[in-house]
Amino acid sequence: MLRPWSWILGFALLRSALAISTGNCVSFDSKSGGFQVASTGSARVLVAPNEWPGVVRAAGDFAKDLSTVTDKTLTVANATSSTASQSKTPIIVGTLGHSDLISAVVNSTKLDVSTISGKWESFIAQQVSNPLPGVDKAYVVIGSDKRGTIYGLYELSEQSGVSPWYWWADVPVQKRSNVYFTGTCAHGEPTVKYRGIFINDEQPAIQSWAQEKFTNGTGAPFNHLFYANVFELLLRLRANYLWPAMWSGMFYVDDVANGALADYYGIVMGTSHQEPMARSTPNEWNLKPRGPWNFTSNAASVTQYWVEGVERVASYETVYTLGMRGEGDLPLEESTNIKNLENVVEAQRKILAQVYNKSDASTIPQMWCLYKEVQSYYEDGMRVPDDVILLWADDNWGNIRRFPLENERNRTGGAGVYYHFDYVGNPRDYKWIQSTQLEKVHQQMTLASDRGANSMWIVNVGDLKPYEMAIEYFIALGRNVDRWRERSPTNDTLQAFVTQWATREFNLPSKSEEIAGLVRNMTRMNARRKHELLNTTTYSLVNYHEAENVVAAWSDMLSRSEAIYKSLPSGTQPAYFQLVHHPIQASSIVQQLYYTVGKNNLFASQARLSTNSLADQAIEIFDSDWELEDQYHKLLNGKWDHFMDQTHLGYYYWQQPMTNTMPAVNRVAGKKQALAGPMRITIEGSLGCVISSFTPFFS
Amino acid sequence: MLRPWSWILGFALLRSALAISTGNCVSFDSKSGGFQVASTGSARVLVAPNEWPGVVRAAGDFAKDLSTVTDKTLTVANATSSTASQSKTPIIVGTLGHSDLISAVVNSTKLDVSTISGKWESFIAQQVSNPLPGVDKAYVVIGSDKRGTIYGLYELSEQSGVSPWYWWADVPVQKRSNVYFTGTCAHGEPTVKYRGIFINDEQPAIQSWAQEKFTNGTGAPFNHLFYANVFELLLRLRANYLWPAMWSGMFYVDDVANGALADYYGIVMGTSHQEPMARSTPNEWNLKPRGPWNFTSNAASVTQYWVEGVERVASYETVYTLGMRGEGDLPLEESTNIKNLENVVEAQRKILAQVYNKSDASTIPQMWCLYKEVQSYYEDGMRVPDDVILLWADDNWGNIRRFPLENERNRTGGAGVYYHFDYVGNPRDYKWIQSTQLEKVHQQMTLASDRGANSMWIVNVGDLKPYEMAIEYFIALGRNVDRWRERSPTNDTLQAFVTQWATREFNLPSKSEEIAGLVRNMTRMNARRKHELLNTTTYSLVNYHEAENVVAAWSDMLSRSEAIYKSLPSGTQPAYFQLVHHPIQASSIVQQLYYTVGKNNLFASQARLSTNSLADQAIEIFDSDWELEDQYHKLLNGKWDHFMDQTHLGYYYWQQPMTNTMPAVNRVAGKKQALAGPMRITIEGSLGCVISSFTPFFS
Repeated sequence: MLRPWSWILGFALLRSALAISTGNCVSFDSKSGGFQVASTGSARVLVAPNEWPGVVRAAGDFAKDLSTVTDKTLTVANATSSTASQSKTPIIVGTLGHSDLISAVVNSTKLDVSTISGKWESFIAQQVSNPLPGVDKAYVVIGSDKRGTIYGLYELSEQSGVSPWYWWADVPVQKRSNVYFTGTCAHGEPTVKYRGIFINDEQPAIQSWAQEKFTNGTGAPFNHLFYANVFELLLRLRANYLWPAMWSGMFYVDDVANGALADYYGIVMGTSHQEPMARSTPNEWNLKPRGPWNFTSNAASVTQYWVEGVERVASYETVYTLGMRGEGDLPLEESTNIKNLENVVEAQRKILAQVYNKSDASTIPQMWCLYKEVQSYYEDGMRVPDDVILLWADDNWGNIRRFPLENERNRTGGAGVYYHFDYVGNPRDYKWIQSTQLEKVHQQMTLASDRGANSMWIVNVGDLKPYEMAIEYFIALGRNVDRWRERSPTNDTLQAFVTQWATREFNLPSKSEEIAGLVRNMTRMNARRKHELLNTTTYSLVNYHEAENVVAAWSDMLSRSEAIYKSLPSGTQPAYFQLVHHPIQASSIVQQLYYTVGKNNLFASQARLSTNSLADQAIEIFDSDWELEDQYHKLLNGKWDHFMDQTHLGYYYWQQPMTNTMPAVNRVAGKKQALAGPMRITIEGSLGCVISSFTPFFS
Repeated sequence: MLRPWSWILGFALLRSALAISTGNCVSFDSKSGGFQVASTGSARVLVAPNEWPGVVRAAGDFAKDLSTVTDKTLTVANATSSTASQSKTPIIVGTLGHSDLISAVVNSTKLDVSTISGKWESFIAQQVSNPLPGVDKAYVVIGSDKRGTIYGLYELSEQSGVSPWYWWADVPVQKRSNVYFTGTCAHGEPTVKYRGIFINDEQPAIQSWAQEKFTNGTGAPFNHLFYANVFELLLRLRANYLWPAMWSGMFYVDDVANGALADYYGIVMGTSHQEPMARSTPNEWNLKPRGPWNFTSNAASVTQYWVEGVERVASYETVYTLGMRGEGDLPLEESTNIKNLENVVEAQRKILAQVYNKSDASTIPQMWCLYKEVQSYYEDGMRVPDDVILLWADDNWGNIRRFPLENERNRTGGAGVYYHFDYVGNPRDYKWIQSTQLEKVHQQMTLASDRGANSMWIVNVGDLKPYEMAIEYFIALGRNVDRWRERSPTNDTLQAFVTQWATREFNLPSKSEEIAGLVRNMTRMNARRKHELLNTTTYSLVNYHEAENVVAAWSDMLSRSEAIYKSLPSGTQPAYFQLVHHPIQASSIVQQLYYTVGKNNLFASQARLSTNSLADQAIEIFDSDWELEDQYHKLLNGKWDHFMDQTHLGYYYWQQPMTNTMPAVNRVAGKKQALAGPMRITIEGSLGCVISSFTPFFS
């Protein structure tokens, strides 16, 4: 729906500032001629009394970030035109139409804000002279709307050296003697209007972690203390949309502050494909007796349930999920046909219009997710009103099933994509560590944008960690797909992205290209076959050295990553461990384990005595999987305890195993000589063994 | 063809003498009024100078046996009517028509020999007065033919306390102060004319053993030193026919004494179904370049090969195998049709007539074995001359595929059966320990006899040991099927047989019924699923306590057998170990192993921590399999070294594995709590586990 905005500033892919965001807004060099932050040893960040509270909150983050970087003191203060002059060189922050301060600045400086005026989530920031009475100069950050301003602030924070992941992945903040805001810093409308994540499948990892960290052991884990961290992360990533945890969580019930807090921060809340009308379903439905979850037989009760849902959130920024599915990711009963579902949607829109006191629902953001069987209703002719976003889905494995056709691209609601980095369901879960290839994400999401699916992108991120970089890449594409679109041998934007990301996170520019290679290879190699689907014969043990080559490649990656890890300052090691080294180590262990057990099984069939030492090795490797998990959990005094609780070895069916199980190993009779004699000769490329001393014959 | 002979003596199933043979020929009680063996402290066993050398040799065994039993001295001496009187009370042994001594005895005593005269393998033995000049009384053993006399001698040996297995299974000879030969001892013609065994599939066990024991490490293992033991065993069992080892052996080539020795002992030699005309094929064929094994394209060479084969054995008692098969138990090429095979048989009979210098081959013993694909030639209409024995075969698993029909029972050659206690081939070998149920042997072989298959019974016995009792039962049925035919709740002849066998072997009459029960159960339970086909899920681990019940039954058998083993004198323990205790122990270990690993695999899937201790237990059980094998090999200073070399755990396809492999065990993460919590609840009869703390949901 929204199209990329024409850029005010050009940008280079390789830049000195620690950021992978808009452009060169920050310099640490006095010769840049920029606006020096806290040049007097302290600085004031001014906001108007009528500013969005969420902008004021973000200005606090911004002040704290810059204080940390510069070791100087930035404070946020309310100001009017007449009180602003307490500082001769303030930073003035505000939202067009929501800030008397910004109105005054624009009025007195004649600053051209036409590029952002009336736009979605855009901002412009630059130095101005004499913006207000008694103020010599100021740096102004002006947003087109609430999130526009917030994104401007976080843009400056990131470029100054505060990673969006400073807390979630312990990326250290680099200290700078001086920070200069340079030139004009700006970003227009995003490619995709709603860009977000779905925290899902949250047991055992994030739920146990949240329970430990935010509840003192009692109460719902996903409370406002938990979500404050999520909301801030999303805004720093310039995302705006969230499907909250719903396996065992109920966003609006678990903590009544959750909904209010999201709106305060500036996060647009949604609910997943099976939770219509802003209620966590089935959990909320089952809180008390309401009869069957059936709109045909139990319409009054279902309607009342939905009315309550909309009334609860009508004052918050919300995209309503329409439609109806069965409980537990299952279709409704067969008798529920398209006509009934159309009745459901019609009823839902009537509820919306009624609660919002509007003649119709067409201006209220709504979405209908065409996930799994729901897509077939659409294909069979079911339609929803034009203003409802149609959210197309991937096949759960990263391949988008269907893009909007030519004649579907003029809908006012537009289209979007529901994508998966994590999945629970048939034929098998994948929910441990990163196994979606970055190139795949690039190819699918740029294609989605090209085909007009730009109203909403949401990705299932499971426990959130450890998908940090993949999440950022997904959101970055959604914010500005054109920036990352071009790929060619001489313009590898994915390599540029990951390299810039590595530079920002680890501040080791000489190694950033190599780290990018490691991360890309890690996702590429894991995507060949996800950990959960590996077994002892996935890679051939006899043909073309396939398994040996795979394991050798992991070994090589591991030793290169290890060398980088050891070269890093201790303050950067935790971030590198979480973001790069752990997934390489963890994947390497799993590959080594299946390879070793595969060899063990094969060698047993070949009556080779080394079968038994391979069995012993397998046990050691299996134990090292736990040791690595334990290392993750003990990191930084247990900050991320439970985040690697996810079982990943020994799937028996689609659902996660209740414990990790070592693939089964054989042992051969160690004290008994093999029938064919003490020496076994195996022909390369053969499952068998040459039998030297006799020929088995007949009966 | 031959029908059971009417009995001279009745017999009781439960008798005092240690034998399961004809009847009450021996007593150890002076009140029996019998002929006292070596009453003067020594005794002479007289044979005529024109006696069969094989009878003289057997008389030597007889004299040695009785010397051992009585601790007195029996010697064999040549004698004539005039020299016999050196002993006043000799034992006179001879064959009707082959012993001047017996002619003189019959002439002077008017002894009625009409019951055996002209019969096959019959004998009569009794005390006579004044049989020869100067001889007061004598015990005479008169055979209708060579083996008739030999069987009479071994009958007396066995009833005196020398088991046919005294050497092959170390059954101790019981000492007796006095031995009396009582009444009239006799046996008529056998039910089945040719009763024998096939030593086959002889690597790794019997071949390695023979190599160690009879060759000083060089030369062919199956030489005359080896076969002397086999021939004696067969005669003591009252068998008469042998297919020699041919996996890597060539009976007439490996040791030129082999053929002559067989004839000397009185063993009728044959060759297996794929070795026509008394040559070990393909081994002999491949000794030098002879062109293709193809009678169509290479008739001259093949004919010459067969001529040489017949010439080599024409002076020995032989049953010629006719027909032609491909090498290695395989059919000939498809183009070889019935007409070609009929040409083969016609050529073979011409060769026989020519070498034997007869007008035709109809009086020369011949056999055509309808094994595997050969039966289909017969079913498709191929016929051989009427005098050729048709040898029907089982399906390799103890089920005879086809019996002679009514209109097939008047052939002069009659019919026979080729049966398996051991098998190598698709779908899987079985060649370790006894897994053929005794009841099955009884049912199949009595049925075979009823349907007229009484010309030849031969059973594949693999390494010979450890099928001792099954071999004896098969041969005993063939010698006198009527004796063992009747089975009813009140006349369980199988139980009688095994009980008598146990009494004879272990001299512990109070436990014989229990031992019989153990042995029968061992064969019954092993026949449910042979060891080689067992796996970790053969018996259900969740339904009806199936696996638990199977293992418990083995445990119970093992402890009962252990108690008997410990109660036996040390001299009897080796025999009991080989014949009863070892197979129960060995089977029990295998069952316990698969059960334990099955539980291990199941418990892993249920995320139970005891998975790991089950894996450790499995390793211990697996090791105990080797320890038991080692115990067998170290028995009696290594007398039976290698006889338990046979691999039996971890088949990967039909052919024996090159080493024993423990079924694969899982391990669960021992240091990591299962997702569902520390306690797992399993519902009996369910593969699953109750998951208590959370419900997996959706993505």
